Amino acid sequence: MSWTNVRDNELKERARLVIPGGMYGHESTRLLPVEFPQFYSKGKGARLWDADGNQYIDHLCAYGPNLLGYGFEPVEAAAEAQLRLGDTLNGPTETMVTLAETFVKQITHADWAMFCKNGSDATSMAMVTARAYKGRKTILCARGAYHGASPWNTPRPAGILPEDRAHIAYFEYNDADSLTAAFQAHAGDVAGVFATPFRHEVFYDQFEPDAEYAALARRLCDEHEALLIVDDVRAGFRLARDCSWEPLGVRPDLSTWGKCFANGYPISALLGSEKARAAAKEIFVTGSFWFQAMPMAAAIETLKHIRESDYLERTQDYGRRLREGLTQQAAMHGFGLRQTGPVVMPQILFEDDPDFRIGYGWTTECLKRGVYFHPYHNGFVTAAHGEAELRETLTAADEAFEALKSVSPSLEPHAGLMQLLGAH
Amino acid sequence: MSWTNVRDNELKERARLVIPGGMYGHESTRLLPVEFPQFYSKGKGARLWDADGNQYIDHLCAYGPNLLGYGFEPVEAAAEAQLRLGDTLNGPTETMVTLAETFVKQITHADWAMFCKNGSDATSMAMVTARAYKGRKTILCARGAYHGASPWNTPRPAGILPEDRAHIAYFEYNDADSLTAAFQAHAGDVAGVFATPFRHEVFYDQFEPDAEYAALARRLCDEHEALLIVDDVRAGFRLARDCSWEPLGVRPDLSTWGKCFANGYPISALLGSEKARAAAKEIFVTGSFWFQAMPMAAAIETLKHIRESDYLERTQDYGRRLREGLTQQAAMHGFGLRQTGPVVMPQILFEDDPDFRIGYGWTTECLKRGVYFHPYHNGFVTAAHGEAELRETLTAADEAFEALKSVSPSLEPHAGLMQLLGAH
Repeated sequence: MSWTNVRDNELKERARLVIPGGMYGHESTRLLPVEFPQFYSKGKGARLWDADGNQYIDHLCAYGPNLLGYGFEPVEAAAEAQLRLGDTLNGPTETMVTLAETFVKQITHADWAMFCKNGSDATSMAMVTARAYKGRKTILCARGAYHGASPWNTPRPAGILPEDRAHIAYFEYNDADSLTAAFQAHAGDVAGVFATPFRHEVFYDQFEPDAEYAALARRLCDEHEALLIVDDVRAGFRLARDCSWEPLGVRPDLSTWGKCFANGYPISALLGSEKARAAAKEIFVTGSFWFQAMPMAAAIETLKHIRESDYLERTQDYGRRLREGLTQQAAMHGFGLRQTGPVVMPQILFEDDPDFRIGYGWTTECLKRGVYFHPYHNGFVTAAHGEAELRETLTAADEAFEALKSVSPSLEPHAGLMQLLGAH
Repeated sequence: MSWTNVRDNELKERARLVIPGGMYGHESTRLLPVEFPQFYSKGKGARLWDADGNQYIDHLCAYGPNLLGYGFEPVEAAAEAQLRLGDTLNGPTETMVTLAETFVKQITHADWAMFCKNGSDATSMAMVTARAYKGRKTILCARGAYHGASPWNTPRPAGILPEDRAHIAYFEYNDADSLTAAFQAHAGDVAGVFATPFRHEVFYDQFEPDAEYAALARRLCDEHEALLIVDDVRAGFRLARDCSWEPLGVRPDLSTWGKCFANGYPISALLGSEKARAAAKEIFVTGSFWFQAMPMAAAIETLKHIRESDYLERTQDYGRRLREGLTQQAAMHGFGLRQTGPVVMPQILFEDDPDFRIGYGWTTECLKRGVYFHPYHNGFVTAAHGEAELRETLTAADEAFEALKSVSPSLEPHAGLMQLLGAH
């Protein structure tokens, strides 16, 4: 079957009438090449199908929630068994206690857990907990780091007031002087620091922090009685079976989790150390569906696979071989790739491509050959990405590089993207 | 089997170690009688089972999400069929478009829809949209009305800054003079008004607004170019098959929904009129799980039953007969009940019970006889509450009134509750 997007365009037309702008948030395709599907119909393992029935080997993984493969049977079985008993009741089930105990056992810095729905819930709870800790106001964030889409951190200004971020102060990521200066500028009032496990911003090369920066963040928080927060919503369990800064030897007071720890089921978490427990107890946060048992049952099963399977080594192996293969192919075809960040969260950009037209062109050629790479957001790979997926992906990628050579003179930058980037 | 809470106490002990305060948010039992279960195991129809296996006829309905009965088969079938295809993918499925179209057809004021997870997401999006509409800042809220648990509206102060609610101004609910004065005090800067469908605050009698107040809210918003917001998160589809103010002849610009429109599956919504569409398009809001297809499939099926079944008339009939039965029983046993609000959302308090000890005593006696009434939060009834449930409920309630007479001299007020109320 040849690639088509007739159905997707019909759905986009219908959506335009009943959803503002046709779609919103990170899953809007407004800034993507026009061929990228807005609507999907199915997912299984490492593959997904769009509304037209085109099949893709997926390297975006629902922007993160898919860790072990779509519809991973052991997790599905646990979730569905719980669903048949009950999901949202007058209170939680035992699954909530078991899940909290599991996190406390598994995540070195954690002595307690709270569960919520959105990554933004977890980061907002971390902020409020840090402020409750010593009654201070200032929250330090790395400039440009994404921590959610609430009024205090959403990246777009519409409807947002200066007061919403009155006591958020910014420093340059991985810059010891800048972090130190931020503490000094707010001496006596720093409540918490979002240290960010590594930089994974859209449109940019990813990079990991120096161990010295991480250690400094810990030391400054201790000296100033502020809480250190690692926002692991996007990277959690992609780099380690523990908090992402554990391999650096740095333990936060709070960490925020979401995306993949229930392999796609809707749940996020705030984890904390003993020091932060009393403050966490004082804040009032809640949500109608925060105590759902089904995602908790899915999370318990997912965490078991995280502990007991070789998912991490397998995703690393796939990611490494994918990166090497693409590097070779690009060189053979005369393109320079910038592949950055951990191999399991690949960011793939092109050299000499300031307006992204080459990357947009290549990912479009891949897409039409059944391989989904996102042109500006970091990707993800799962434990379901195996030999067959690697082979098919590299075959399609090679053809896409070849096709890129002939189409590249006629490529134009994406109009909507240029408008956005121009506005910055 | 006689009532027991051995297992619940064991779970509470375990929870105390790994969850701050043992539990958080609206499902914490900290302020409830000590016998009230914290943990549940199962739900079906109008009944639920706690962790000890005690069965209850449930008049809380998961604090709202249960509208048609736990595990209502047609909704379960639709949800599970979608789950097997895919849930959280790289984008939404057609279900999202269909669901938005369904809302636009069904809710008179709505021309578009956006979906999210928490009620707080929807109310925060309404606030940000109202501010984006004309670039103004002030949001008017009824004093004491609950609109969620985000920094700008959470009812508890820990970790919250004055700046979080710098431009939230308050008026007295259902008070024309107070609302008019609030508009005058912020003339030229009112972005939106949370008008609240009716008052349903914990520990208080509920009451519905005058039609004149609702009409005035509409007129003032029009005169001042502010957006009128009806927060239907708790009451939506309990009072009408449309927005809760539609029967009053007042159409908001924005309405917020959550709780029950997917019969327990996790989804909330912001609906808006044409006038608000451009502003809604400008804001940036999103969440990892906001585009989940499973809750959307459940919502489409739930909305179909809302339109096509007599669920509303049946819940009203049950609620009315329950209220009448309890009134008669209370009088026969020499107690005065204050039953307020819509019969489908019963708030049951006792006269001459300033510290709530009588109500706590009676609901505890009901609980031990297999009937769950909440002693300070409004309840809910569902379409699964039928003749058998009414008969069993009234039998248990009657015995509870009888028992109350003998235990009432020895009742003590709830220590934690007294601490909280004293703190206000």
